[in-house]
Order: sequence, then structure tokens, then C-alpha cells
Amino acid sequence: MTLFDEEAQPVPTPSRRVRALVAYDGSGFSGFAAQLQPEVRTVAGEITASLRKVLGHPVDLAVAGRTDKGVHARGQVVSFDVLDGTDLGVVEKSLLKMLGPRIVVSSLELAPPEFHARFSATSRLYRYTVLNRAVPDPFLAPTAWWVADPLPLDLAGMRAACDPLIGEHDFSAFCRRPDADADLTRRVTDARWEEAGDGVLHLWIQANAFCHQMVRSVTAVLVDVGRGRRNVADVTRILRSRDRAAGPSPAPPHGLCLWEVRYDGVRRG
Amino acid sequence: MTLFDEEAQPVPTPSRRVRALVAYDGSGFSGFAAQLQPEVRTVAGEITASLRKVLGHPVDLAVAGRTDKGVHARGQVVSFDVLDGTDLGVVEKSLLKMLGPRIVVSSLELAPPEFHARFSATSRLYRYTVLNRAVPDPFLAPTAWWVADPLPLDLAGMRAACDPLIGEHDFSAFCRRPDADADLTRRVTDARWEEAGDGVLHLWIQANAFCHQMVRSVTAVLVDVGRGRRNVADVTRILRSRDRAAGPSPAPPHGLCLWEVRYDGVRRG
Repeated sequence: MTLFDEEAQPVPTPSRRVRALVAYDGSGFSGFAAQLQPEVRTVAGEITASLRKVLGHPVDLAVAGRTDKGVHARGQVVSFDVLDGTDLGVVEKSLLKMLGPRIVVSSLELAPPEFHARFSATSRLYRYTVLNRAVPDPFLAPTAWWVADPLPLDLAGMRAACDPLIGEHDFSAFCRRPDADADLTRRVTDARWEEAGDGVLHLWIQANAFCHQMVRSVTAVLVDVGRGRRNVADVTRILRSRDRAAGPSPAPPHGLCLWEVRYDGVRRG
Repeated sequence: MTLFDEEAQPVPTPSRRVRALVAYDGSGFSGFAAQLQPEVRTVAGEITASLRKVLGHPVDLAVAGRTDKGVHARGQVVSFDVLDGTDLGVVEKSLLKMLGPRIVVSSLELAPPEFHARFSATSRLYRYTVLNRAVPDPFLAPTAWWVADPLPLDLAGMRAACDPLIGEHDFSAFCRRPDADADLTRRVTDARWEEAGDGVLHLWIQANAFCHQMVRSVTAVLVDVGRGRRNVADVTRILRSRDRAAGPSPAPPHGLCLWEVRYDGVRRG
């Protein structure tokens, strides 16, 4: 008797690496990462439970970006292993039936065996949405941070304040440090504000990787600049301080969305 | 002692008519109209309860379109009376604090005494959204009917099938009849499908007024045409039958949104 003798047969090993896209409205979940308490609903918890039912074996789910409680994703990427010969079309349809439309797992495809959703990723793109309008919007409320004061925010200042963030920096002032030795150096390759009309402002920010709460803290500082409470020099000063206490409280999670993960052919699995 | 002697003073009569715009995500509500059971959450119930607190007196709320359970609104219009001298800016801010962002009451303004949100309205514009895509979208799920089969729907057919609906007709085949004598004649002034990209299809339909479940039933018939299950002649036949049994079950409520109400200066209060 082994651990996996449910059908009293030799246990084949899932050996084919699969990657998939995942989109979810984070509102109803306590973040992506599975948690020990079974009563806490997480995106990973829901996906692994469904995959186990569909595949008939447990999976070890890798994920590109472990989004926080309330954070959304449109272009999250996961990877896991299946048995040789598994029909990915059937798996995708079953997942859609079990998890959709709150969690949509799509574009399942075989990947090289060394592919790892997290370690193979070369860049992540996040979008943070601010609604800068006197009156809120019931339909944007789940995905945008409503900032009514001032009208309008100083967008030119917010744009200028993106510049000091570009490049490779120690983002300790903007991140929750997981442990004393963690290296919080990240390379930000793009950060820009887009005006989408009717007071909707999107911050698009791309980096090789992000540390915990980094985009939300950056957003909070930039909106402070837009409010006239800080200026561009303050952003540089905060960044250089490497001191979390010098930074702001993070902006609310519901404005944030993991938009795209890139792999660019580089595999570090 | 009178019914309203809370401050033992003569009771002034609210005499200034106010109109306001209302937007709401209908997901959490059992429709617009207040219901007798206090445990049933309705949009009107929430607004009248808040107005009573803010104004200090009960209000009789009139509404342009009594949307069903699950139906949304961006341009709903209500009217009610306030005391002379009431600061509408303060009322609007208080309502926003009490009801926003799920229900947003805005653009409060004084209206002529004969204005009535329902009886003065000269036309209503509704939008019904269909998502015609293989994979659903967590962010559109609350406001669009996901139709995955076939891909694509026959949009040309759906457009042609709008034509028989234009004009003044008895819409008995498309409506839930409130009582045997009800006149279900309505004048549809526009009905067209808009392609919004990525499989998002909007049906825009305008009429002097709509009877109960009319837009959702019309949508269901048009989508049947898009699926190849009915043709344009069937739509004409169903309309002329004036027989509810000949029509389809209504499309789901969450794809529907009351977009705009027009008054065009005509007052029938």
C-alpha cells in the first residue's frame, strides 16, 4: 500500500509541464497564495482543488505573481504538471465550468519541462486605476481607487514623479520586507500614467519583478504628488532612504491588476 | 398632538420638487421598487431610507424605470419633494456617504412642481450587453450575458431582426402582462447592435416606454436569430401574435442597464 494506491495500480508521475493564463476578480479572495486555513478562499486554493478533481492527482502550482488580497489579474500565469496524454482542452473546459466566470483559466498549453511560471518570468506589467472624479461609479468601484480631491490631480507632476523610479533601485522604502536579508532590488523598465477619459487614470508599471506591496506603495506616493502633498524630489528622497517608514501606506488593493507576464524565451527553471 | 409632532411645531409641507440621477450595480438588489418585506434590499428602499434620515421627513419617490432584480442603471431618474430652502449640495454629499459607491445619487436639482420622474419621461434608452467569446471575463461577468456558442453570432441577422421592432406595436408577446386590461402598446424609436470589440455586443434600444421584461425578451429573440434558431420573419410573426407563449424566455437580467431617460421639455405631471 502506497500513498497513492487509490486504484491499486503503479502510480504514473505527472511529467508534462503545462502553462496557463489566469484572470480573476480578486474581490472575493484572500489573495492568490493558498493558505493553511481551509476556510480562507484563495485563487490558488480554488485552482488546485479543481485541478486535483479534473486530473485525478495533486498538483504543485507555480504562479508568476502572488497577488495580495483584493488584487485582480487579467494576465496571471501559472504552471503545473500533468500526466502524459492528458487532453488539455478537456481540462480547460472543466476548469471553466468549475471556476468561471470569477476565475478564468485559459490558454492551457504544453511548455518545456524547465518552464516555471515564477522563475522563468522576465517581466511583469501591472496596472493601477485611479478614478479622479467628484462622483464615484458603481461599475468602476470594484476595480478603481476613487480619489475625489483634488479635481483634477496634478497629472503632470505625477508623470514627472515616475522618472526617479525607472531603473534598478533598492525598493526597500516601498515594500514590505519578508525577512531581514531579503534583497529588494528591482529593475523598473517602465512607469507611466495614461488618461483613459472621464477621470480614469491608469498607472502602467513594468519591472523584472516586484516586491511585496511595491506597486500600491508607488501609486500612493505618486497620488500624493498629484495632490500636492509631495514633490518629485520627495520621491527620490524616499527611494534613496531605503526606509519603509519614510514611504507611504499602500494604495487600496482593489485598484491593482496584474496585466501581463513576459517570458521572452529566457528560461531559468 | 399630530402624526408629525416630533418637535412639537407646525409641520411644514415639502413643496419643492427635486430630480436626480441614479446609478447602481443591480447585482445586490431585488430590483428598484420598494417591497413590503423590510428584509428585501431594493434600490428605492435604500434611497428612501437615506433620504428620510437626511431630510428629516418621509419622501414619496417617483422613478423613471422600475428595473427588475439584477438589472443595472447608469441614467435612472428619480423625483421627490423637499422643504423650501433645503441645501441640495448637502443632501447629495450625505447620500453619497450613505449609499455610494453601490448606489450613486447625483445631479440633484430643482425641477418644476409638475415634474414627475416617471410620467414626465418621453423616452428611455436601455443597453443590453452580450459577450460573444469562447472564454468569459471575470470583469464583464457582472454586466454581460456570456454567449459562447456559436462563435461568432450572426450579427447581420441580429441587425436585420431589429427592423420589425421599430415603430408602434403591441408588445404583448414580449412582456409580462400586469393585468388583463393593460395596454402593452409601445413606440420603439431605435434598436441597433453595436460591436464594441473583443466579442462585446451592445443592443441599444430606445422607446417612449417599455413594458415589463420587454428588453430582455427582445434580446433573447435577437440572440436566437444570431444563433440561427429563428429568422427575421419569426420575429415579425412573434410580434404580431401578441401571445406571450410565442415569445422566448427573457435574457438574463445582469446584461441589462437603463442608460438614459429623456424628458424633452414635455411635462405630463
